[in-house]
Amino acid sequence: MTAPRLTAWAVDGIPEVHPGDDLVALVGDALADEGIEHGDIVAVTSKIVSKAEGRVVAATDREDAITAETVRLVASRVHPNGVTRIVENRLGLVMAAAGVDASNVAEGTVLLLPEDPDATARTLASALRTRFGVEVGVVISDTAGRPWRDGQTDIAIGAAGIRVLDDLRGSTDAHGRRLDVTAPAVADEIAAVADLVKGKASGRPVAVVRGLGHLVGPVDLPGARALVRTGENDMFRMGTAEAIALGRRLERESRDADTE
Amino acid sequence: MTAPRLTAWAVDGIPEVHPGDDLVALVGDALADEGIEHGDIVAVTSKIVSKAEGRVVAATDREDAITAETVRLVASRVHPNGVTRIVENRLGLVMAAAGVDASNVAEGTVLLLPEDPDATARTLASALRTRFGVEVGVVISDTAGRPWRDGQTDIAIGAAGIRVLDDLRGSTDAHGRRLDVTAPAVADEIAAVADLVKGKASGRPVAVVRGLGHLVGPVDLPGARALVRTGENDMFRMGTAEAIALGRRLERESRDADTE
Repeated sequence: MTAPRLTAWAVDGIPEVHPGDDLVALVGDALADEGIEHGDIVAVTSKIVSKAEGRVVAATDREDAITAETVRLVASRVHPNGVTRIVENRLGLVMAAAGVDASNVAEGTVLLLPEDPDATARTLASALRTRFGVEVGVVISDTAGRPWRDGQTDIAIGAAGIRVLDDLRGSTDAHGRRLDVTAPAVADEIAAVADLVKGKASGRPVAVVRGLGHLVGPVDLPGARALVRTGENDMFRMGTAEAIALGRRLERESRDADTE
Repeated sequence: MTAPRLTAWAVDGIPEVHPGDDLVALVGDALADEGIEHGDIVAVTSKIVSKAEGRVVAATDREDAITAETVRLVASRVHPNGVTRIVENRLGLVMAAAGVDASNVAEGTVLLLPEDPDATARTLASALRTRFGVEVGVVISDTAGRPWRDGQTDIAIGAAGIRVLDDLRGSTDAHGRRLDVTAPAVADEIAAVADLVKGKASGRPVAVVRGLGHLVGPVDLPGARALVRTGENDMFRMGTAEAIALGRRLERESRDADTE
């Protein structure tokens, strides 16, 4: 097996995106200037998807917007500037403020996450394949914090035409041992590569990642939603403080039931 | 600002590593064949660091080894094949089985994480800078699961000569808005890039990431330990089931104290 050589770069020529803009055309035109090849993966910052979809709300409605995007409160913390809410949002993503973002948007507004990033990724991948006649993948990325680690990394919140999980379970290592639990979340790693070349403040919301053609496949492969782990399989479905409080409440309720 | 073009590839010519091997020489010799440039970042899989340090134990001692590496049990779960323990280890990392690994090692053995990966990264970065006369960074990576997401990504467990956190707090976005909370964990993203090109089964434990010279600096910049978030700042310092059980116990204890 030859090791793949990976190259990645941020694409020039994406203008400021406004509600109603044709994202497929904007991204396609920028890529036409760059040249796009079979097996390329196009990584798009969720922000421009949200902008094209018009998912802008007034900053004064920020807290209401977070509430509307929230399926379940996971943890919250009071700090000097207000309350941080870590929530599970409509997309199954656990994020601070439900992913509602105030950076790189006009003053006085905040931006919600895209409506359905997997669907948008499929639309974009199909359109790019048709326009350029090559098989490409698409990742839609957003920035997320992590438990136990400082700082943020970009993750895939939408994907199409790639294997999001490079499932090695059942394959063997160089010693012939089975890699029983190994399944690299390659879509998230691709989002991370794209973040390194796009930067946060550069105004370049699209990157091309070349050299991972072995991960590219049919447009209708499972999307980034397949990377979401929720429910019983999630050992960290509540913040520690919230879970301790729940335990106290459950204990009080069972005591009250016993004494009735 | 010109967008950086990133290239990354896995390095050929690293032999199977054994206890006592001179890792600096092995990695240096392999890189001499590849060519190394100012601003390159060399990503080394923790496994070969552990092997050179002789951190191999018999598989029959696996559970004892995990216990010895554990500072604090974070969560555990019983499943058909045994118990999975998520623990905080000596290095401050929260990982399944304390990072003790059974893949890519000889049958009947398991591998502990390196003794002090930040120190090893500094040694390696200094030696490579001296040998090649160029300023390079080093990341030592390992594979970790994440709450809320399926699959694993590689993270930096050791680093030297790079900014591990690209702290943008206080800088402004394209709209002149302050990026108040944005601090990409670039060392983790670099580990992710390296994982994409090394693969898990290829026998190529070293990669070069080129094009991120703006992140490379003095060898004694803070290491990967600086990315560890523990204690009160960690809203997920216990598994949900464990925290609920703690809440119940605390409630019983306070009730018992009241009735004494």
